[in-house]
Amino acid sequence: MSTLSESAALERRARDLDAADPLRELGERFVPDGDAGLAAYLDGNSLGRPPRDAPARMERFVREAWGGRLIRGWYEGWLEWPEQIGDRLGRVVLGAAPGQVVVADSTSVMLYKLARAAVAARPDRREIVLDSGDFPTDRYVLEGIAAERGLELRFLETPLDSGATAEQIAAVTGPATALVALSHVNYRSSYIADAAAITAVAHEAGALVLWDLSHAAGVVEVALDEWGADLAVGCTYKYLNGGPGSPAFGYVRAAHHAALRQPVQGWIGRRDPFTMGPGYEPADGLRRFLSGTPPVLAMVPLACSLDVIEAAGMAAIRAKSVALGDYAIELADALLAPFGVTLASPRDGARRGGHVTLRHAAFRALLDGLWRDGVLVDFREPDCLRIGLSPLTTAFAEVHRGFAALAARLAAADR
Amino acid sequence: MSTLSESAALERRARDLDAADPLRELGERFVPDGDAGLAAYLDGNSLGRPPRDAPARMERFVREAWGGRLIRGWYEGWLEWPEQIGDRLGRVVLGAAPGQVVVADSTSVMLYKLARAAVAARPDRREIVLDSGDFPTDRYVLEGIAAERGLELRFLETPLDSGATAEQIAAVTGPATALVALSHVNYRSSYIADAAAITAVAHEAGALVLWDLSHAAGVVEVALDEWGADLAVGCTYKYLNGGPGSPAFGYVRAAHHAALRQPVQGWIGRRDPFTMGPGYEPADGLRRFLSGTPPVLAMVPLACSLDVIEAAGMAAIRAKSVALGDYAIELADALLAPFGVTLASPRDGARRGGHVTLRHAAFRALLDGLWRDGVLVDFREPDCLRIGLSPLTTAFAEVHRGFAALAARLAAADR
Repeated sequence: MSTLSESAALERRARDLDAADPLRELGERFVPDGDAGLAAYLDGNSLGRPPRDAPARMERFVREAWGGRLIRGWYEGWLEWPEQIGDRLGRVVLGAAPGQVVVADSTSVMLYKLARAAVAARPDRREIVLDSGDFPTDRYVLEGIAAERGLELRFLETPLDSGATAEQIAAVTGPATALVALSHVNYRSSYIADAAAITAVAHEAGALVLWDLSHAAGVVEVALDEWGADLAVGCTYKYLNGGPGSPAFGYVRAAHHAALRQPVQGWIGRRDPFTMGPGYEPADGLRRFLSGTPPVLAMVPLACSLDVIEAAGMAAIRAKSVALGDYAIELADALLAPFGVTLASPRDGARRGGHVTLRHAAFRALLDGLWRDGVLVDFREPDCLRIGLSPLTTAFAEVHRGFAALAARLAAADR
Repeated sequence: MSTLSESAALERRARDLDAADPLRELGERFVPDGDAGLAAYLDGNSLGRPPRDAPARMERFVREAWGGRLIRGWYEGWLEWPEQIGDRLGRVVLGAAPGQVVVADSTSVMLYKLARAAVAARPDRREIVLDSGDFPTDRYVLEGIAAERGLELRFLETPLDSGATAEQIAAVTGPATALVALSHVNYRSSYIADAAAITAVAHEAGALVLWDLSHAAGVVEVALDEWGADLAVGCTYKYLNGGPGSPAFGYVRAAHHAALRQPVQGWIGRRDPFTMGPGYEPADGLRRFLSGTPPVLAMVPLACSLDVIEAAGMAAIRAKSVALGDYAIELADALLAPFGVTLASPRDGARRGGHVTLRHAAFRALLDGLWRDGVLVDFREPDCLRIGLSPLTTAFAEVHRGFAALAARLAAADR
């Protein structure tokens, strides 16, 4: 069978898969391409599409809520948005009971605050365990904390196409471990770490565990309470469709609220902030993890997308994510492997997150051309293309178009 | 002259002042009240009104920029927004040459980052000087930094109706002073600190100086470069009309960029962030003070309001601010002093910021009624009403309505 007819058969399969997709209708609740030149948006793992409601709700929020209620808005609900939207995120996406998730800050800042709180709560322990293959901000922020607190970083060395395992954690944790900080879904390989097993192993050593859910939230099923996780952070602009630079979320297990103190002692995290009294005393419960005035304006699109995610349910989203990934791997095997492209993500859908990563020495040189073809994917050093598959907005046909364009670019480069 | 006819004469003056107001037309570039029940919005010092362009520009940004450009937006300009909008804020509002102002984080987080950077750069000095009457977040954040670094806080004791002076600073600074951190306009009294003189005195002692401009930016003329300020922070949702929870700004004098390092080592502050390499190295220049993904969505209204502020010019804004304050004090003398209300702000316009603060033991009890009258002012412990006067959006007639309602409430309470 020629590659061309194979591609045509795969294209027909895409049409069938799209026709049978139970999320298809909900996918229409996002803004479609305004740009006719875009053939395939395969970067929703970097920035998700806007919810279709978001433009109008933003417009209305600015005009009616901000413009109409003015300062009264803070007392009529805005002050509670970090916890209210956090609770909803906890229930719909994160497997967290109420009162444990807040929406605030950037992911880097939230990670700093929670990791600092964790190591301060384990003053007799001198080590932070992390993954040398983790997303840069995680490594850099933890490096900064270690330097300022005189702690040691213990890096796991995980292969580029994999992620951290419970065996690795068991080997490096012990009475010196203050904190284990890992990503649930590896940003490069898409490998899903066994969060429950890793958390249990780290707890046996008496360490606290912080999960970065940036590449997991909204695309794989997360169960923070069930895992026994202590802390978690994540961004809301990828599979949660919160918009460019939308605020992060933070999770702190309820049992830890009283014992943990974060370093950025802003007024919103103080007990009775409006008394404006002398001396900082952390608020009871989750609010102590807040610092500045809540970024409510920037939370509006997230509230819109949670409506759609809740209507879909994480089980259906996860099922489509696995199907999209399986289909992408099928395309890679059929159309790209002949050019020497290899897979850097788990073949097993149960261990693979929302994106699929491919490797080829020519990818760096092909990227600009692909973007000109209207195929938006992203490149990660040294030779990886990440194919982002957003269950609510990515069509199988779109995946096919993207891979066909990539195959054509590889064929042209080969000549 | 009875209070009633005096009030009528003052009301006529308000109409004349409004008719002659050179900013009147520009004031129409903000969203007017959608709420017929609102008699006077005198809390723009807490949350400014939305720019009239903002609803449509937000709508369009979500639909066309986020929805249409998707991930490409980051490479087509969004990544530079923190510095681009920062430069503009520096030029139009802060008296700062390009390359020294960024828009990012919340004010509490930015203050934490810059104050931490400052004390780390003066490791042989053990004291932070601050004002016991400063805004809570400033005191709490600095208290947290002092505790974690083993530093001492030296509190100025300033009267409730005043603010820090150069004489006070001269008396408490010395070879032990690492940092002097003060507000340019006191949040309670509206007193304007002599920033140039205080900065000079602190520099004589070898200390760094950080100005909180939250209550100053957009209402008084700020000249960071000219003052010789080392660092500054401020919020953008008061007189800069950036919207509820809009991002903060931070200023770092160019001469300090190379020597200062902030603690939240997120990827956006690293040299060549997209190489995602091992180990954090701060970016050259201002970018090292960034941490997480820039909150561009939340910067759109600020870009709108800077258009209006630039068209008006800070000199005209300041002139109207002084006139509004003078008129408010005239009203207070005529209508409220008979009930025992006193002024807790400087009578001298040259030393007074954008709001006017009044004191009376009954104010706490009157607040709810005033809000029901549609007069939005805010209460600050122990007995202060802050009357916020936003030069671009507050009309003299509105001030009159607010004071007349307050006088009526006091009269009713007196009976």
